[in-house]
Amino acid sequence: MSTYDDLAARAQRLDEADPLARFRDAFVDSADVVAYLDGNSLGRPVRATRDRLSAFIDGAWGDRLIRSWDEQWFHAPTEVGDRLGALTLGAAPGQVIVADSTTVMLYKLIRAAVDNAAERNEIVVDTGNFPTDRFVVEGIAAERGLVLRWIDPDPVAGVGVDDVRAVLGPRTGLVLLSHVAFRSGAVADLPTITAAAHEAGALVLWDLCHSAGALDVQLDAAGADLAVGCTYKYLNGGPGSPAFGYVSQMAQDRVAQPIQGWMGAADPFAMGHSYAGAAGIRQFVSGTPPVLAMQPMVDMLDLIEEAGIATIREKSIALTGFAIEVADELLAPHGVVLSSPREAARRGSHVLLDHPDFREVTARLWEVGVIPDFRPPTGLRVGLSPLSTSFAEVVRGLEETRRLLA
Amino acid sequence: MSTYDDLAARAQRLDEADPLARFRDAFVDSADVVAYLDGNSLGRPVRATRDRLSAFIDGAWGDRLIRSWDEQWFHAPTEVGDRLGALTLGAAPGQVIVADSTTVMLYKLIRAAVDNAAERNEIVVDTGNFPTDRFVVEGIAAERGLVLRWIDPDPVAGVGVDDVRAVLGPRTGLVLLSHVAFRSGAVADLPTITAAAHEAGALVLWDLCHSAGALDVQLDAAGADLAVGCTYKYLNGGPGSPAFGYVSQMAQDRVAQPIQGWMGAADPFAMGHSYAGAAGIRQFVSGTPPVLAMQPMVDMLDLIEEAGIATIREKSIALTGFAIEVADELLAPHGVVLSSPREAARRGSHVLLDHPDFREVTARLWEVGVIPDFRPPTGLRVGLSPLSTSFAEVVRGLEETRRLLA
Repeated sequence: MSTYDDLAARAQRLDEADPLARFRDAFVDSADVVAYLDGNSLGRPVRATRDRLSAFIDGAWGDRLIRSWDEQWFHAPTEVGDRLGALTLGAAPGQVIVADSTTVMLYKLIRAAVDNAAERNEIVVDTGNFPTDRFVVEGIAAERGLVLRWIDPDPVAGVGVDDVRAVLGPRTGLVLLSHVAFRSGAVADLPTITAAAHEAGALVLWDLCHSAGALDVQLDAAGADLAVGCTYKYLNGGPGSPAFGYVSQMAQDRVAQPIQGWMGAADPFAMGHSYAGAAGIRQFVSGTPPVLAMQPMVDMLDLIEEAGIATIREKSIALTGFAIEVADELLAPHGVVLSSPREAARRGSHVLLDHPDFREVTARLWEVGVIPDFRPPTGLRVGLSPLSTSFAEVVRGLEETRRLLA
Repeated sequence: MSTYDDLAARAQRLDEADPLARFRDAFVDSADVVAYLDGNSLGRPVRATRDRLSAFIDGAWGDRLIRSWDEQWFHAPTEVGDRLGALTLGAAPGQVIVADSTTVMLYKLIRAAVDNAAERNEIVVDTGNFPTDRFVVEGIAAERGLVLRWIDPDPVAGVGVDDVRAVLGPRTGLVLLSHVAFRSGAVADLPTITAAAHEAGALVLWDLCHSAGALDVQLDAAGADLAVGCTYKYLNGGPGSPAFGYVSQMAQDRVAQPIQGWMGAADPFAMGHSYAGAAGIRQFVSGTPPVLAMQPMVDMLDLIEEAGIATIREKSIALTGFAIEVADELLAPHGVVLSSPREAARRGSHVLLDHPDFREVTARLWEVGVIPDFRPPTGLRVGLSPLSTSFAEVVRGLEETRRLLA
């Protein structure tokens, strides 16, 4: 047997033994895709979402019409938020809302953190953070006259606590980091870095875009302050689905967000003369909640509830571990380098491989129904969505990669 | 025959003669609603939306997966925006985007207008504007050290050009007004007020929430600068559907928005080190476009294209005119006062009636399937969505109101 045959047989055994295998049928299939390795950019739709949206149109929207705002929709940002908090973020009720885009939520929570930070005029951020995080914080720094203290992390290992400690100081107001790096997938040590920032008197805002729904994020246990994330990756909310924002109970008393909208006011329908923010997490809502756009993620939350986030994380580790093993066997001989951490605990749910030809290879992989992501300059990013990705897809996708390189 | 019978017969004749009557079948029905008079808060779903969303889940999302971003979604904010501009706003291509909530879009465009206004540190706004407009601008004024110059308009007639002229001055940077007042439905003289503001060297930001899809708004012809609006009223986008923003070609060179996100960057997938805004209207996009949430409004744009906005406006005027006639006949004898302009050209697509008992009456109307809106302190707001509301509904709804008052 060839190496490939061995690995394919191993994949089959792993799929057979996978306690979450049955969840794959819960997702809509794509006719021409043989290996979808980009669920970390856009998760597949849950099959139930088709019926949920039809029922929503006929029922809550079409039949109940405006009455649904009183009956259920008004509380959607906090109700879906609480559920997301409980199932995936380790957040007690009253700390999570679903609203806005990730970019807008980042803007609101960064501003919330720095606006009242007085002489703490420095924000710590890393050059490896996702572009929108860097762009937003650059804009805020320019507008508010703040200083950005840049960390230039190791591209594979990501940001470590020592990197953060090196730039923390008495003027640090906020540390803005991704929990899982969007390129390497390295997992930052959220509890330790949070504690280090707190020792220095700073708040931390965690970007959970590549964590939520795949990792067991324990925000409350870590004493986290602020977090944001998107819901179209491992939460399968669909293209451009709303973001979420977490503001810890303690931070809620210390910060205020700048986009004062009627849906975050204490009594929106009083149509009063001046803004008075609602109590608690509600004050972080600005405009009319994107209720229709929240529906698909609810189906995914149902699946996550059934599977359990700890089991999902185990599958994620198994998938990335297998992807690394396959890459070592099939791709390393062709000069492919692993650019993600090898330790299980340091890996998110995607793996980055580098090779000078990967831009062209990715384009050709797409043509044969193998769909990873390309990340400049030379990265092939293999995203593994625990509930919808099989081990067979991993080996199939990487074997096609090998063939194209060979 | 009683007055009611006369009016009901008139309604029947009007419905029979209505050139847009056939469009009513294009909307989802509600089982228990006999008169839906709140399409100006939440438009009914278009029947085609059910199939569009199912096809979207199976096709663009579920089958094409991440590839749809390249194939079509990336340009959705400007493509849907251009269509909205052409069909309802009188805006040439390249000036409208669909994104964010109305509140967030207001924040972005107000900031865009005032951030670089140098010594022009005053914003003109009226006390009758919708709460979120006032709340957002209050927040911005507090944050930027700007002065709000309040107009206190006549509650029926709304803001006139003389009201605006009285507070315009060399320090005015921005005038923020609603085109159609959310309470009285009064239509502001958009071209004249825009010209007056320009004479004073100020920009104008028009809130079109109660205009878009019902009135023939001629933004380009008026030389407008900036506008925002929502799409869940007369554009039937569903609860919390995304907002739109208009920035005239000329204004695009003068203003910049504060929420610098990757999807408004010149080359989002370069994942570059610093933000460089895209050319043109695209720079006003911040986060990932809410593509799924844009789908329902596309069905309504199809209907608007078929009906034509001028014909829609005629029907709107006929509906509000008939509502006023019915209110005069049936409700005035019970002490109900019309709080909307009587002239056709000054009326939007809703009518406000006042009576001290209307809070309680509205609650009882809802119980019998007549659904207007209550607006404190004593307003019954009758919203008339031109493509989905019949004349029969108007008379039925106001007759129930009469019965409850009697």
